[in-house]
Amino acid sequence: SVPATGCAGTSCAAVLPAAQLVPAHPVAGTERSGPEAGFATLFRGRWCIVTPLPETDPVATTRVADFWRRLGAAVDTMTPEHHDRVLAVTSHLPHLIAYSIVGTASDLEAVTESEVIKYSAGGFRDFTRIAASDPTMWRDVFLHNREAVLEMLGRFSEDLASLQRAIRWGDGEALFDLFTRTRAVRRSIVEQGQDDAREDFGRTHEG
Amino acid sequence: SVPATGCAGTSCAAVLPAAQLVPAHPVAGTERSGPEAGFATLFRGRWCIVTPLPETDPVATTRVADFWRRLGAAVDTMTPEHHDRVLAVTSHLPHLIAYSIVGTASDLEAVTESEVIKYSAGGFRDFTRIAASDPTMWRDVFLHNREAVLEMLGRFSEDLASLQRAIRWGDGEALFDLFTRTRAVRRSIVEQGQDDAREDFGRTHEG
Repeated sequence: SVPATGCAGTSCAAVLPAAQLVPAHPVAGTERSGPEAGFATLFRGRWCIVTPLPETDPVATTRVADFWRRLGAAVDTMTPEHHDRVLAVTSHLPHLIAYSIVGTASDLEAVTESEVIKYSAGGFRDFTRIAASDPTMWRDVFLHNREAVLEMLGRFSEDLASLQRAIRWGDGEALFDLFTRTRAVRRSIVEQGQDDAREDFGRTHEG
Repeated sequence: SVPATGCAGTSCAAVLPAAQLVPAHPVAGTERSGPEAGFATLFRGRWCIVTPLPETDPVATTRVADFWRRLGAAVDTMTPEHHDRVLAVTSHLPHLIAYSIVGTASDLEAVTESEVIKYSAGGFRDFTRIAASDPTMWRDVFLHNREAVLEMLGRFSEDLASLQRAIRWGDGEALFDLFTRTRAVRRSIVEQGQDDAREDFGRTHEG
């Protein structure tokens, strides 16, 4: 889960009529939630997105940005609409897909759930970390960012159908081309310090 | 990538007519490939699947199983057909989905690739590790296990379409139910020692 800080727009404005509202959203976190899941370096080297409203005083925006920088985050400013599209692809769609595949795997009859667990090291276990995120928060994310999520989901489903066709018709070249292209994205993420550079995320291998 | 050991059936039989063939498949590995990517504890606590052929001498099967046990693996025996279905769901489908979503994300116009990389800590970066696996090996996996992969992919697409519908129609209960159910799978994987129990896979958080 990505912890969201701040308070919901309408409720704040009602209680504090003179308050300045500066929505901001850190892109950091783990699969655990609640105050106990925090740690000192949670925001270090991560990005925080600040989405000022048209009526927000720029001074208030600067103060909020400074607050996040002091926690170790880098700050980006964008419109709420753009934020919703960026998060739909970098966070909401991955969560939806992870929840979905873990659900599919645990519904099978031909392969037992015990087999899925035993052989999860083949790749599946990565998806289960995300699919262990807070259900209440994620339900609300999907209901509130519906438009952008449905758009990204439509694109993903098209792309997946095209891969399905390549497999069915034995088009190895199409598969190889995509599989080669995606490596570069991983390389950039590691180079920009957004993920652990060690193989397997630096997992322990003591079994 | 999951490194496959052994030699391909037909080629071995042609070169060594009296040889005993015992196909076996460890479920372990990282996104790196080749001999340099190995390490001493690679198979410790992981499972190795042995799939003897009808003509395989049971003594040879026992020897191969012992070999894998000495490397630290636990051994399971099943038919090649069942192996193909198990791996389709625990390994091949997750890889296909990871490759696909990373491809979708890097094709967007509304959200730049640089934004995808900056905000990848929202969940996306987990998918990029798998999508950095060896392209040649994975092309061949999909072409050779076509039937089982297409079956699992069909089930996944149905389940995803049903989630899409729940989002479109605002059915929060359906979302919440699935998101709650999937947590248990993660718990079992950690309990059975198939993944790092620390949050975020024990990633470093120094940014």
